[in-house]
Amino acid sequence: MGDTSQGRVDPIARLVQAFMRLPGVGEKSATRLAFYVLRQGAPFAEELSQALLFATQKTRFCDECMNLTDQERCGICSDQRRDPKILCVVENVQDLRAIERSHEYRGRYHVLHGALAPLAGVGPEALKVKELLERLRQPGCAVSELILATNPSVEGEATALYLLRLLAPMGYSVTRIASGLPIGGDLEYADPATISRAIAHRQKIG
Amino acid sequence: MGDTSQGRVDPIARLVQAFMRLPGVGEKSATRLAFYVLRQGAPFAEELSQALLFATQKTRFCDECMNLTDQERCGICSDQRRDPKILCVVENVQDLRAIERSHEYRGRYHVLHGALAPLAGVGPEALKVKELLERLRQPGCAVSELILATNPSVEGEATALYLLRLLAPMGYSVTRIASGLPIGGDLEYADPATISRAIAHRQKIG
Repeated sequence: MGDTSQGRVDPIARLVQAFMRLPGVGEKSATRLAFYVLRQGAPFAEELSQALLFATQKTRFCDECMNLTDQERCGICSDQRRDPKILCVVENVQDLRAIERSHEYRGRYHVLHGALAPLAGVGPEALKVKELLERLRQPGCAVSELILATNPSVEGEATALYLLRLLAPMGYSVTRIASGLPIGGDLEYADPATISRAIAHRQKIG
Repeated sequence: MGDTSQGRVDPIARLVQAFMRLPGVGEKSATRLAFYVLRQGAPFAEELSQALLFATQKTRFCDECMNLTDQERCGICSDQRRDPKILCVVENVQDLRAIERSHEYRGRYHVLHGALAPLAGVGPEALKVKELLERLRQPGCAVSELILATNPSVEGEATALYLLRLLAPMGYSVTRIASGLPIGGDLEYADPATISRAIAHRQKIG
């Protein structure tokens, strides 16, 4: 470390350890980041430090859709122009943001904050499913269609199936986002599961 | 962002921006890190936040060698077993740490905190050269050999040449770390400059 003396907390070692707790950051990257911060000096470290505290202290779940926000209701739920009849159910906030970036969808969202993973001990009670049902039951709730936009992975498919069985009997129109070859993709390099899905879900044209 | 409302500082956007100021962290990585921090919660953010402040507030340059330390003199300079006759001059603290990891060197160090780069406006006054000369001039300074361990790059070579011209007339034995093929390296994949150097600096054996 920067100082080889024993028995004290080495501030550089502590910063390296803290950076190493971030995902995808090993000891070499953490060391590089720590020395970068030290070279930049105190104001740089203070800004990052304050941004960390500010983000974790100020963000909370939107009362309505479980999106992250610093208000009672997030910007999407407060936006009267968004269609209240369609609800897009996503695994997490990053997925919501990805859908927003496509500028295709103008309905509302519900964020589950995870997907079912029985082997990892993640059951429906660990997701925001109860909150979804409460929201649908509220008087004045205009939702008629639910789009299940969980990921096309084992966990995401299991979550979609679970929600379908829960919601379809309640009279909602339940749809699933399409999966198949990505736009600009190449059959030659696509994985067999994607090709199988693309063929099974082929659509009539012309 | 997590909230699309305008006119306020979005705490998530601020954290993403702060992470993006780290080297090698683009918007996607910064977003991933920000959401990871939010999922981990406040104690995680507080530890990283405090480690950042602690590191930048507590670390300072060692009075003797310009290594980073939280004391007046770093652990290496305080270690009486380290040979005071040999001084290894390095560009930065990471280089010092790399040499320490090899467990080959038992002398002292001097950290320049950079290398000469005239085109980028980095002259000798931007490096800790003045401090090196002051240290050598001090009564009781036992240094007789200086190992120039700046990197084998254009800037590192220029820095070594500058120091050689400065130090050799003062009567010091000045050496340069060897460059050539790395151990475990392969001639087939070595770059021409490394091969040229390895041949030019060939040594008699047997």
